[in-house]
Amino acid sequence: MADDGAERGTPELFARHAIDTHRLEAFSDGVMAVIITIMAFQLKTPAEATFHDLSSRLPSLLVYVLSFTVVGIYWNNHHHLLRATRRIDGAVMWTNLFLLFWLSLVPFATAWVGTANDKSLPAATYGVVALGAALAYFALVRAILRANPDDEQISAALARDYKGIASPIIYAFGIALSPVQPYLSYGCYAAVSLLWFIPDRRLTGRG
Amino acid sequence: MADDGAERGTPELFARHAIDTHRLEAFSDGVMAVIITIMAFQLKTPAEATFHDLSSRLPSLLVYVLSFTVVGIYWNNHHHLLRATRRIDGAVMWTNLFLLFWLSLVPFATAWVGTANDKSLPAATYGVVALGAALAYFALVRAILRANPDDEQISAALARDYKGIASPIIYAFGIALSPVQPYLSYGCYAAVSLLWFIPDRRLTGRG
Amino acid sequence: MADDGAERGTPELFARHAIDTHRLEAFSDGVMAVIITIMAFQLKTPAEATFHDLSSRLPSLLVYVLSFTVVGIYWNNHHHLLRATRRIDGAVMWTNLFLLFWLSLVPFATAWVGTANDKSLPAATYGVVALGAALAYFALVRAILRANPDDEQISAALARDYKGIASPIIYAFGIALSPVQPYLSYGCYAAVSLLWFIPDRRLTGRG
Amino acid sequence: MADDGAERGTPELFARHAIDTHRLEAFSDGVMAVIITIMAFQLKTPAEATFHDLSSRLPSLLVYVLSFTVVGIYWNNHHHLLRATRRIDGAVMWTNLFLLFWLSLVPFATAWVGTANDKSLPAATYGVVALGAALAYFALVRAILRANPDDEQISAALARDYKGIASPIIYAFGIALSPVQPYLSYGCYAAVSLLWFIPDRRLTGRG
Repeated sequence: MADDGAERGTPELFARHAIDTHRLEAFSDGVMAVIITIMAFQLKTPAEATFHDLSSRLPSLLVYVLSFTVVGIYWNNHHHLLRATRRIDGAVMWTNLFLLFWLSLVPFATAWVGTANDKSLPAATYGVVALGAALAYFALVRAILRANPDDEQISAALARDYKGIASPIIYAFGIALSPVQPYLSYGCYAAVSLLWFIPDRRLTGRG
Repeated sequence: MADDGAERGTPELFARHAIDTHRLEAFSDGVMAVIITIMAFQLKTPAEATFHDLSSRLPSLLVYVLSFTVVGIYWNNHHHLLRATRRIDGAVMWTNLFLLFWLSLVPFATAWVGTANDKSLPAATYGVVALGAALAYFALVRAILRANPDDEQISAALARDYKGIASPIIYAFGIALSPVQPYLSYGCYAAVSLLWFIPDRRLTGRG
Repeated sequence: MADDGAERGTPELFARHAIDTHRLEAFSDGVMAVIITIMAFQLKTPAEATFHDLSSRLPSLLVYVLSFTVVGIYWNNHHHLLRATRRIDGAVMWTNLFLLFWLSLVPFATAWVGTANDKSLPAATYGVVALGAALAYFALVRAILRANPDDEQISAALARDYKGIASPIIYAFGIALSPVQPYLSYGCYAAVSLLWFIPDRRLTGRG
Repeated sequence: MADDGAERGTPELFARHAIDTHRLEAFSDGVMAVIITIMAFQLKTPAEATFHDLSSRLPSLLVYVLSFTVVGIYWNNHHHLLRATRRIDGAVMWTNLFLLFWLSLVPFATAWVGTANDKSLPAATYGVVALGAALAYFALVRAILRANPDDEQISAALARDYKGIASPIIYAFGIALSPVQPYLSYGCYAAVSLLWFIPDRRLTGRG
């Protein structure tokens, strides 16, 4: 394998070294930290210093709260997932970048919903971005499983990964509801956040 | 506990691993670093290259100095707090995200005060954001205490956490003064920064 | 050497300490994480909530996908390159900053192509930025080689660094094609990304 | 001292723990990485896809190159300085934040010079920000010396810290020249960058 790598040029050269998870975590943390802060930066200051103008920013603030929760949950889950990971290969690195790609579109979707929260298309777009991130996370979990084939504990637990399967389904349902009533879509998206939020709070780290 | 986790799906699987403080610190650092830089980025360049136009940016600069101090103090305290922490659970992680949420709204409040510093509502909004962050930090300290119940030194010291209790009270006082005179509000907010700044400077790290 | 350093002032003083790769990686990760997120932030929300206005953002989205891939590949390669590096000197640090300089211009080129994708000049500018980054990466690999002269494995592999040589040539070809037809230029730039993407995926980390 | 700390409240509690340099570096890296990227983000895309409009961005690009160099040099020196540091106290942490405060104003000064490079006031403002950062770095070196009083090698070398003393003087000279001719100011600022750049390149890390 080291020979194969050497024959193919620069990056393969380094394939013989085990790849640790640290820099993958640090880069993902950086992207997610910037996403969260950039979204808050998109909250425009009210035109006039009146309650009326401040309250007109309320939809923007609420969708920011939702997006903050979504990114916060991914950060939390990503943290736990990589802690349990021993080996990382190229597929894991690229699937992780694919997840970050979808998360990097969250500020765009958040800004659009914030300015047109009563329209179907922004609500559907938000759902597509959230669905893309959920599917990418699903793929990331599988890529990590393939890179760590002998870890029976991970495999057994992931066989019952109900929330990882339910999330994209609920997001797809929310997209389908957007032409009917965008606020039903937001309800679906918020439901996914609640789904992940509550059990994590009770159980994580108490082992 | 490992069995419980395995029965409930992906993230709980990893609950059996102890969670270290490193990635929590790194993520919080990233968010706070971006907040500080984004706020400076909001300082608009003067329209004309004259002293008059430059001095019209002075209120924006002063409120930036205040906000830089606020975030700097949280970074400093957060640093010391997590250094003394042995165990982190889900409640700590979510309370920490709650603190970052409030801090992420500081650029919004800063930008608004910078453009309308003589109005009551921006001054009150700034205070609400600062109060939210202070209460979230208060909750974070308690969550860390609950996760580390046997550390008597932390418990004893926090029983006399005068500054952690005084900060939200002074912020609330500043909010109450905003309809009377916004500059009194800013005085209160600056007083909280001074309260934290001075003793830290003399004592931290000399042990 | 310690004496030499002491005679010349502050920074040379520390030259006697070996310089590790960790902070170089962390800083580069930070810059690349912000670049990726800033580019997504430049995607402007559609003026109206219609399919027509959303589809008018499609060129911006496509060039964002290309730029995300470019930066992602540099991050991936940079990660592997520094993992194999034992010694870092001043030349490595400045060549790395030179690479980050070119990468920091990617959002500028991306934004311009996104608003005028059918024009020759933005397509050529994008190519110049990509070419600058490719040459800087080439120089970084050489600077690392000079700082680690006794590592025969790195030297042997880099003697066959086909992709590191092909990339700037294809970028230059793309720039030359921009007056003829900008979409041919984008095809060249995308071809470079494919060149790096596919083998990395199969081989990296399997050693 | 631990008793003192416990009597005064939360942050002092942790004073009994030695403070390592890692998180100080990570936070400073984050701020400097965002500053560099934000400055490039401020480069506005040309209004039309013509050489004329692109060349009108040249002053912005040149001042960006200067500012990138300034921040890059601080990052480089900061890296070496903290590598040689054993102990950090509160004064070091706050002086470091003071340095980051001045550096965070560099994007503001850069943007203003970029739009009005032939005017005296932006040139002077850029110099004031650079002078503030130089004096803050000077203070940071002294704070580190006071926190590490027994390290004779650091003390001896810093007694001949010619560049640390020359930098603020040249910046002040540049500010004084700005009413005469702003381009003379830029020449002074660029001279400081050259002063730091060249010897670092030859000597750092060769020990």
